[in-house]
Amino acid sequence: MTLAIGIEIGGTKIQAGVGAGDETLMGLARGAVDPSAGAEGIRGALVELVDKALAKAGAKLGDVQGLGIGFGGPVDTRRGRVLRSFHVEGWSDFPLAKWASQQWGVPTWVENDASIAGLAEAHLGAGKGLERVFYFTIGSGIGGGFIVDGRIDPGQGLGSAEVGHSYVPHPGKQRGPVKLEHVCSGWSIGRRARQALQDGERSVLTELAGGIETVTAEHVYRAAEKGDALACRILEETTDALAVGISNVLALLDPQRFILGGGVSLMGPLFWEPLRQKVRRLEFPVYSGTYDIVPAMLGEQTVVLGAVLLGLRRDPPRRRPSRS
Amino acid sequence: MTLAIGIEIGGTKIQAGVGAGDETLMGLARGAVDPSAGAEGIRGALVELVDKALAKAGAKLGDVQGLGIGFGGPVDTRRGRVLRSFHVEGWSDFPLAKWASQQWGVPTWVENDASIAGLAEAHLGAGKGLERVFYFTIGSGIGGGFIVDGRIDPGQGLGSAEVGHSYVPHPGKQRGPVKLEHVCSGWSIGRRARQALQDGERSVLTELAGGIETVTAEHVYRAAEKGDALACRILEETTDALAVGISNVLALLDPQRFILGGGVSLMGPLFWEPLRQKVRRLEFPVYSGTYDIVPAMLGEQTVVLGAVLLGLRRDPPRRRPSRS
Repeated sequence: MTLAIGIEIGGTKIQAGVGAGDETLMGLARGAVDPSAGAEGIRGALVELVDKALAKAGAKLGDVQGLGIGFGGPVDTRRGRVLRSFHVEGWSDFPLAKWASQQWGVPTWVENDASIAGLAEAHLGAGKGLERVFYFTIGSGIGGGFIVDGRIDPGQGLGSAEVGHSYVPHPGKQRGPVKLEHVCSGWSIGRRARQALQDGERSVLTELAGGIETVTAEHVYRAAEKGDALACRILEETTDALAVGISNVLALLDPQRFILGGGVSLMGPLFWEPLRQKVRRLEFPVYSGTYDIVPAMLGEQTVVLGAVLLGLRRDPPRRRPSRS
Repeated sequence: MTLAIGIEIGGTKIQAGVGAGDETLMGLARGAVDPSAGAEGIRGALVELVDKALAKAGAKLGDVQGLGIGFGGPVDTRRGRVLRSFHVEGWSDFPLAKWASQQWGVPTWVENDASIAGLAEAHLGAGKGLERVFYFTIGSGIGGGFIVDGRIDPGQGLGSAEVGHSYVPHPGKQRGPVKLEHVCSGWSIGRRARQALQDGERSVLTELAGGIETVTAEHVYRAAEKGDALACRILEETTDALAVGISNVLALLDPQRFILGGGVSLMGPLFWEPLRQKVRRLEFPVYSGTYDIVPAMLGEQTVVLGAVLLGLRRDPPRRRPSRS
């Protein structure tokens, strides 16, 4: 059986899995990121996690054909190098693919984690069988992945689909553009609620969260379900901005399906229904009815599953036709 | 010699040319669109223009390998059908490729005119030799073309890169999103100026244009050069919005080069320098220094030159790798 190792290096967690490229992992091991141990500490932990995952899978390194890594930050995919980490010291310009292929003796490919999650959803999840899929992960930040014909759009080699860094109108009283990530990420939803409460606005949020400082996006959604005015306004601002972000991707890339993963996508109909309606109002009419917006299917192991696909080279290699 | 016919069907003009796929046309014939004659009138006029272009080129139909058409509106490129025209009656769902291949007996391909102009710039103009080029045409409206590895990104088959329909923050006192085309097209620049003058704002524009109703984007640029406050403000709003539009394309698609064509791109340094600075301020830092923003090179015949390339199939055919 042909197997690959998939590794996720996130901001708070690391995971290693062994799989054959389908929806399940034969072995999985997880750990937490210790920022004080730096990049070197994470690499040491990964060596142990891979051993554990192989043991759980009843497999040995000789069965492994390749290794894929989903990294939580920008990556030079052609050279297999990390560009930087926003969470942990010591990653800048680190040759991650080279290190891993020396460590485990198998070919290694590195991609941004959101792109890898999109790859997994396009092959195994909500985008199965589709040619053009745009994946959003809306968690503490916002990442994206554009999967065309089963492979990650590589941009110039430093990734693409950085939708969290696209701009939408300011939701508050300020004018001008603001990054989508600064309005719609779970972190920014919580921040806006906490700010309003600190400014003296009344809301059930304080009670729900047991204080102002502990208010999160999840509390905002639950308070909105109770009809809380502040929470409803923040949710409204969030779906307004996300609808603009999605409409812009639609106009530029014309995907068949938008797949939304990450914590914010676990919100219920008060998030999803207005979002879909607003995108319909903004859509370029020619694309009307040619796309849909659906939740991700694969859950916690999405990045590891996608990294296994990468290790197996299940994404067709990029062909470069000659130019006239 | 292998030749192709290139046809442009625009909102106000139609052109037919004969070429071999380089920067020059061997024969060219032009006409104006008569909206009252409808789509049928345009097709009749095209038959004559093609005859003229062939005669000027000293070529006959037997020398022609294929035909490309750049249409000024949305197109179903897989079926070669026009979806609609915003200018002339009678185009809706018209099988343009079929009609042309029967008319002239050669294989025909149809694309949106902005995408074709992008193809021409990528092969023969400002994007020569580059793998990822994003073309803007900023004229009476705004169109776009995303050229990857020498071919037009087809979207799902109804085109892509509809950047005029992407959203930016409202430039005026209104809140919320507005289409880029409604702020930065030549038409909308002129409209904002005329509106402000009608609202009683003082400006040299009225004098420059010989009246309020005749004020155009070109007058706005010339007045801004004289330091006119209204004109400077409108130019400022325009580069603000266009910088957001470009930054969003950068974040999502990571092109190496933005090529700006159309009338507005003929403006001088008061347009170009602030635009480049603003995009730099908004850019996703990972892409810093990996792209530039330059004027288009090919001029009035861009669409015809690109349509000839299409007729020669100089854009490498799209390959569809099998899925795992």
